[in-house]
Amino acid sequence: MATKVVSDERRMDDPKASSREVLLASACALMTERSTIEISLSDIAKHSGLNSALVKYYFGTKQGMMLALVEDVLSKGLDRLEDLVAMDMSATEKLKLHVKAIITIYFRFPFINRLIHYLFADPVAGLEVAEKISKPLAETQRHLLEQGIATGEFKPVDPMMFYFIILGACDHLFFGQHIMRVAFHIETIDDAMRRRYTKTLLDMVLSGILTDEDKAG
Amino acid sequence: MATKVVSDERRMDDPKASSREVLLASACALMTERSTIEISLSDIAKHSGLNSALVKYYFGTKQGMMLALVEDVLSKGLDRLEDLVAMDMSATEKLKLHVKAIITIYFRFPFINRLIHYLFADPVAGLEVAEKISKPLAETQRHLLEQGIATGEFKPVDPMMFYFIILGACDHLFFGQHIMRVAFHIETIDDAMRRRYTKTLLDMVLSGILTDEDKAG
Repeated sequence: MATKVVSDERRMDDPKASSREVLLASACALMTERSTIEISLSDIAKHSGLNSALVKYYFGTKQGMMLALVEDVLSKGLDRLEDLVAMDMSATEKLKLHVKAIITIYFRFPFINRLIHYLFADPVAGLEVAEKISKPLAETQRHLLEQGIATGEFKPVDPMMFYFIILGACDHLFFGQHIMRVAFHIETIDDAMRRRYTKTLLDMVLSGILTDEDKAG
Repeated sequence: MATKVVSDERRMDDPKASSREVLLASACALMTERSTIEISLSDIAKHSGLNSALVKYYFGTKQGMMLALVEDVLSKGLDRLEDLVAMDMSATEKLKLHVKAIITIYFRFPFINRLIHYLFADPVAGLEVAEKISKPLAETQRHLLEQGIATGEFKPVDPMMFYFIILGACDHLFFGQHIMRVAFHIETIDDAMRRRYTKTLLDMVLSGILTDEDKAG
């Protein structure tokens, strides 16, 4: 079931990798278009112009394909995460870029959140997502926090708790569209809201909601 | 499909309400015991000693029963929320109690998080959870924030964004048990962790992670 993220160079040369990418791009397009992750193999075959047996060939199962899709969408973001750690920049600035990147991925790929939830409901796929996505994310955050604590920017923070607070906050905005409509009368997350949410979350994580007066008191 | 939360007085007198409660208690016990929400009607019948046709009678469908279970578990917490708003207490103290209560419910009923996710995947049930659970929660938070802003305790905060940050952070700890194991080598959420997570989240929400020095700079 495990599938490898194909690097950009391979995509161009390898005709096998290319069909694989076409299938993933079709799944991505259909899930975005229909606002659901419930798409059939024959839908993917029709949209891509490829035989649905190729899904079996490349991914083993539909779930295998979903896992590959999650990895594909997130792999570029994860590559950039590694660059981020090495950059000559304050931990605070890195943290801002990090949170912005996570929210932007959720925003650009509206199905990704539901797909991740679907995969986490399966013990085997869940372990793989945790290993390939959550673990490197958590590692990056640990480095950012260590840097910020070492430079005196940040107070000591438990990296695991930090992970669940940040990822939970990013995930929940995109998970709770019923809630948004019913409790707040807002229909869709547009780009302005993406930016405001990023800012609000970062303000809260960095400085909290207490006024300076109240903190001093 | 809609079901009503039965108040404590009715439970005692009404034999119908009592069978209903027995079914819910059985579902609750089985889900906790087996760490899954995938329980069958015949499992519930066997555990409760009642006919599985009663599930249909009281809840319409299994999904209806799951919705009733979520409401039942959360109803006491929601009742207390309303009391909270009226209490003679600082907004900061109310917020602490509020966050503590949410995390405690997730902790005491380990299936509740998965059940809510399951219901949100269905458009009709999702709307009902949003209406009966999320909306009153959001209302309470709006009042707490308004109080805190009026007294000068809190900076202005968007209540919707606040909702998604807080609920996301509470939900994700209990959703991400694969992540916890794989990325942080922690097997279970025990009571000490529940308390530490509550404190960490509240510290972050109230004061942020920046050191005072860095804030001043």
